[in-house]
Amino acid sequence: MKKVLVVGCGAIGSLFAAHLAKGGEVEVYAFDSSQPHVDAINRSGLRLSGAAQMHVKLAKASTDPAELPVCDYGVVATKAIHTASAIKAAARCFGSHSVVCSVQNGVGNEEIIAGHVKYVIRGTTFPAGHIVEPGHVGFDIKGDTWIGPFEPTSTEMERVEELAGYLTRGGMNTIALVDARGAQWTKLIFNAATNPVGALTRLHHGAATRFPPTGELFEALIQEGEAVAKAMGVELHGNPRDLVAKGANAPGKHKASMLQDVLAERTSEVDFMNGAIVKWGEKYGVPTPLNKAMWALMKGLEHSRAEEGR
Amino acid sequence: MKKVLVVGCGAIGSLFAAHLAKGGEVEVYAFDSSQPHVDAINRSGLRLSGAAQMHVKLAKASTDPAELPVCDYGVVATKAIHTASAIKAAARCFGSHSVVCSVQNGVGNEEIIAGHVKYVIRGTTFPAGHIVEPGHVGFDIKGDTWIGPFEPTSTEMERVEELAGYLTRGGMNTIALVDARGAQWTKLIFNAATNPVGALTRLHHGAATRFPPTGELFEALIQEGEAVAKAMGVELHGNPRDLVAKGANAPGKHKASMLQDVLAERTSEVDFMNGAIVKWGEKYGVPTPLNKAMWALMKGLEHSRAEEGR
Repeated sequence: MKKVLVVGCGAIGSLFAAHLAKGGEVEVYAFDSSQPHVDAINRSGLRLSGAAQMHVKLAKASTDPAELPVCDYGVVATKAIHTASAIKAAARCFGSHSVVCSVQNGVGNEEIIAGHVKYVIRGTTFPAGHIVEPGHVGFDIKGDTWIGPFEPTSTEMERVEELAGYLTRGGMNTIALVDARGAQWTKLIFNAATNPVGALTRLHHGAATRFPPTGELFEALIQEGEAVAKAMGVELHGNPRDLVAKGANAPGKHKASMLQDVLAERTSEVDFMNGAIVKWGEKYGVPTPLNKAMWALMKGLEHSRAEEGR
Repeated sequence: MKKVLVVGCGAIGSLFAAHLAKGGEVEVYAFDSSQPHVDAINRSGLRLSGAAQMHVKLAKASTDPAELPVCDYGVVATKAIHTASAIKAAARCFGSHSVVCSVQNGVGNEEIIAGHVKYVIRGTTFPAGHIVEPGHVGFDIKGDTWIGPFEPTSTEMERVEELAGYLTRGGMNTIALVDARGAQWTKLIFNAATNPVGALTRLHHGAATRFPPTGELFEALIQEGEAVAKAMGVELHGNPRDLVAKGANAPGKHKASMLQDVLAERTSEVDFMNGAIVKWGEKYGVPTPLNKAMWALMKGLEHSRAEEGR
């Protein structure tokens, strides 16, 4: 039986781990930094509630990759700012034939993973969840996952399709694509518009969408991102505006993850969102002054905590 | 003896009132919304400490313009967001020969004042202060004041010079100019760069200047403002970058007034700063996307308080 290691088994990672285990075709291992979460999974299994109910056993969870075997596949689901440290630690669990897939926010994670692993898959996922308590994750929103070879590593489509099959048959619909950049950039552009505006204004997603000044700023940021994608030759998979509208029409007052980061005084993923759009814009000669401004303000807000000694 | 009414006798208004009274050439009246401050001034006089020490009697201070006489001159020193209500209330104190001078932040105050008063003076002032307690203002930073006719009201230079003389001889150096727009726009461009960035990142002025991402955002915002001023035919009076550097090199951790507004949950002057640059940019066909983004984020941040019922 093939082995899959989930690297970063938080809310999103747990959704992947639980569905893979439920599918029953692979042995599922989890590497996570939370000792209570890891202990709960090993003791009582991993539980999902909400959009789907399930309670599964994993082969093993650990905070130490030395306790985990070499695996055929990896699914990296940490916050983007932790990709480098997580994959460096987990690299010993991947051999010369292993394939590791990012399902993280933003762009730039695959490049980091490829520094430690030979075969990498580019991925984007839409489901959302939150940690209820150690070993128990709330499954908030169902959604598809899109994966395709990370171009520089020439991962074979057969391997992409194999991983997509394990996930889809486990109940997490995953589409294997020859070029997964379109799906990734659509979500990136959505995130780079809605996340910093939510974080800087403290407006929940629906309020920021409906308030004309911030709604118009969303649109201006989306246009910059679309121009960069176009220059790169990336054909978007859907319209980022539809993701904005879908979120705004959802019930409740959803706070963008970057706003949650600000409120919890965590470092945000802005380098992998607006920072990445600026970087690719510079490479392709597309001006991105508004994405650069959002990046600068978020970096400034994070720097203010250091200035105040927090 | 001629009469001068200070409209909005807070920190800045009190600096003007005290110096005019010290000069002894005019009767000084004050209209302010703070009953304790007005009572203290009437009971014990107005006191300044810090950059200069003085303790003067005013002719009368009141929260009710009906208790104040018709005056020859007015000096409006409210926050820009209170200009409309303050001048509407104080209009009864100004007759057909009265001249009223704004010394407020931003642009757009003179237009509002001119809706209630025949002769208006455009002004910009650099001193800073803060209320220590009712009747007592801390004089933090000395600086010049620049005043000139508000163009649509064709105020005679003789009247501008007369008011400048009262102030200068009272100890508050004031330069009368045929065109005061250059001084006003220089300070506006400085304010529109440093204030929203400080407010959104919570960085004090020196930190925001020295941190490269926000320092570069200052520069980009300044360039937009300069382009608008140029299109309008306004020749700047000095370089806004020098004001940024001067502030950054000052001792202490000065928080921009807009950051102070955010922390105190007050409505900011962003409509009169970045909002005004956007409005004039549209009028003259100069794009101002970054100033518009700063305006949108500040409006969103203020709107979030309403969303949360505060």
